[in-house]
Amino acid sequence: MDIKGFQFSAVEAAIKKPGRKDLALIYSEVPATSCAVFTTSTVKAAPVLVSAERITAGSAQALLVNSGNANACTGEMGMFVSRECSHLVASGLGIPEEAVQVASTGVIGVQMPMERIRSAMPALIEGLSSGTLDEMAQAIMTTDTFAKMEARCGQAGGKSYTVAGIAKGAGMIMPNMATMLSFIITDAKVDAAFLDRAFRQGVDTSFNVITIDGDMSTNDTCLIMANGMAGNRIIASGSPEAEQFELLLHDVLLSLAKQIVRDGEGATKFVEVRVNGAEHDADAKRAALSIANSSLVKTAFFGQDANWGRIFAAVGYSGARVDQARLSLCFDNVCMAENGVFAGGDAEARGTEVLRKKEFTVTVDLGLGSGAATVYTSDLSHEYININADYRT
Amino acid sequence: MDIKGFQFSAVEAAIKKPGRKDLALIYSEVPATSCAVFTTSTVKAAPVLVSAERITAGSAQALLVNSGNANACTGEMGMFVSRECSHLVASGLGIPEEAVQVASTGVIGVQMPMERIRSAMPALIEGLSSGTLDEMAQAIMTTDTFAKMEARCGQAGGKSYTVAGIAKGAGMIMPNMATMLSFIITDAKVDAAFLDRAFRQGVDTSFNVITIDGDMSTNDTCLIMANGMAGNRIIASGSPEAEQFELLLHDVLLSLAKQIVRDGEGATKFVEVRVNGAEHDADAKRAALSIANSSLVKTAFFGQDANWGRIFAAVGYSGARVDQARLSLCFDNVCMAENGVFAGGDAEARGTEVLRKKEFTVTVDLGLGSGAATVYTSDLSHEYININADYRT
Repeated sequence: MDIKGFQFSAVEAAIKKPGRKDLALIYSEVPATSCAVFTTSTVKAAPVLVSAERITAGSAQALLVNSGNANACTGEMGMFVSRECSHLVASGLGIPEEAVQVASTGVIGVQMPMERIRSAMPALIEGLSSGTLDEMAQAIMTTDTFAKMEARCGQAGGKSYTVAGIAKGAGMIMPNMATMLSFIITDAKVDAAFLDRAFRQGVDTSFNVITIDGDMSTNDTCLIMANGMAGNRIIASGSPEAEQFELLLHDVLLSLAKQIVRDGEGATKFVEVRVNGAEHDADAKRAALSIANSSLVKTAFFGQDANWGRIFAAVGYSGARVDQARLSLCFDNVCMAENGVFAGGDAEARGTEVLRKKEFTVTVDLGLGSGAATVYTSDLSHEYININADYRT
Repeated sequence: MDIKGFQFSAVEAAIKKPGRKDLALIYSEVPATSCAVFTTSTVKAAPVLVSAERITAGSAQALLVNSGNANACTGEMGMFVSRECSHLVASGLGIPEEAVQVASTGVIGVQMPMERIRSAMPALIEGLSSGTLDEMAQAIMTTDTFAKMEARCGQAGGKSYTVAGIAKGAGMIMPNMATMLSFIITDAKVDAAFLDRAFRQGVDTSFNVITIDGDMSTNDTCLIMANGMAGNRIIASGSPEAEQFELLLHDVLLSLAKQIVRDGEGATKFVEVRVNGAEHDADAKRAALSIANSSLVKTAFFGQDANWGRIFAAVGYSGARVDQARLSLCFDNVCMAENGVFAGGDAEARGTEVLRKKEFTVTVDLGLGSGAATVYTSDLSHEYININADYRT
């Protein structure tokens, strides 16, 4: 994969357990047009506060990210550490401190091991000459079981460019935010205003429609950097390549978002929840999220139990306008319920067959209007509890 | 326990698995002043629809309740069954059909075995001569592991009276409603308007502040019947006994609500979540519910992991106004975090000690105002998943 002008590095700074890389750096040889979205939580990690302030300038040249410690609920000391880390990166690379974005993921409420990060910094910057994006994707994993990466190639004015991204997820994953951490880079030259719009729209229909456990994180960050090194004519709103760029970017975002759901903590199922026939799209999303976040529904998915009644119950308390006599529900193409009641026949047996698959779609039609929404989720398994009952130990 | 003028009966109608009573009846020898609250879900079970319409008259004389089948998402046939059941009770007892309340709990989306209920009806009515409230509490259990009952005695104008109640809970338990099913009876003579107010206020600070899994049921019903057979001077707003009655009633409601949390599906912990210092009470409740419904927080409780950072994260996405630099948190009397950061010292060890107990209190102070709320909840354990992964089989 060739993404011109970007360099990567990942080292072991002993923030996590020994033997795993936990500190990583993306460096763009030139300042990149950048934008980012962050958690909407009122309890924000220090790196979120630092990065959010800096990104308003619309440009970034480096991203420092660590796993193993979220640097959240760490007060003034946490702010100092995030700034000091970015200072070390800036002086090592010879770029302004304001051009450095920082991100963290891991345990909340523990102070960062600043001296270990300081010691690891020379090797981190040194490593830029040989590092890969794949190593970065590995280094940001926490309870993730596989590294999440996606890339697409496009053409603009005879020049080819690449959009690539990495992400980490697993737990504390819930829409209405970016995900835990995701970083998108492209060597395309892109107009800042167009990039901002395309990026936010893309996040809204990818990371913002996934939920694993309904818990929103203090550290959610999704950042894009476009450094223009592909040498293409600038892609802007209305330019012939704009639509292709939007599609490629959305492909990368959605692929990463789905990878996060597939790797949800303890997940054994990947479930697409579609709600159609709502009065409006907002109601459809409300109902879809209510289904996707219901512990009872998710546990039934884990048990491969075609318990469609729990799904209707979740729709019932979602706040969406509902006429229960019009509700219908399908597992893939098997209709389980129509006009609010069991569809009869062999629906039970066929529905159970669907739920035995690793991936399936739940479609609920409210029968009221044309509002629609899709949300991606996982099941709730014993493994989720194993992972989270002793996360810190 | 002597609750004058009330009779009880419970039989096995083969709605549930063999060997367990599943159909029960409360009968008041005279019409009782009654009120009830029902699920606020838009997907309501047939018995909820039937009972809600009838209770507007302010009076009831009998309650028929079954477990094993929720009679929810059963359409017109479900409505017919609920009405037919109440018709059988009314003709068996020689009372108007409108005086019969009906309630159901169990699986959603399966039609009721009407003929089995019809066959069981003569024995049910016959049994009123010898049945007990305890047998009723047993008969309404589903995944409950113990029967839930509470009673208190009071005095009004030289006459003693009793307020008694039963409840069932276990899963699909979430505030902003009554609980799954709870029935309160008293032989006190109580003014209808006063009863209505005292009952609704009592439910608001008992059943409406518990949550087990955040799933609201289609069948939630809480009903009170006051038949006046104690012969007391009527208790009304402003009468000397009014305050005592309110307290007794609240004691019974809160005791039943707490019993439901203690018997939450798979629960190993009983946790009181208090939020103080909110801008207003509504914000405090929002934050408390967000904590109590967080899968990550509940799993940490199960794992006895003093992971206070997850609690701050849940407060952060609750929607309540928060200044993270002012947050503090205690497990019982152990301060874990102050001014938004770890309290240091031996807090970790002492906090972990608290979480090893079966019951403890989490207190979060937002440091903003005088808004406060208390919510009761349980942890999220493997057993919850075991129970719900194969609930229908």
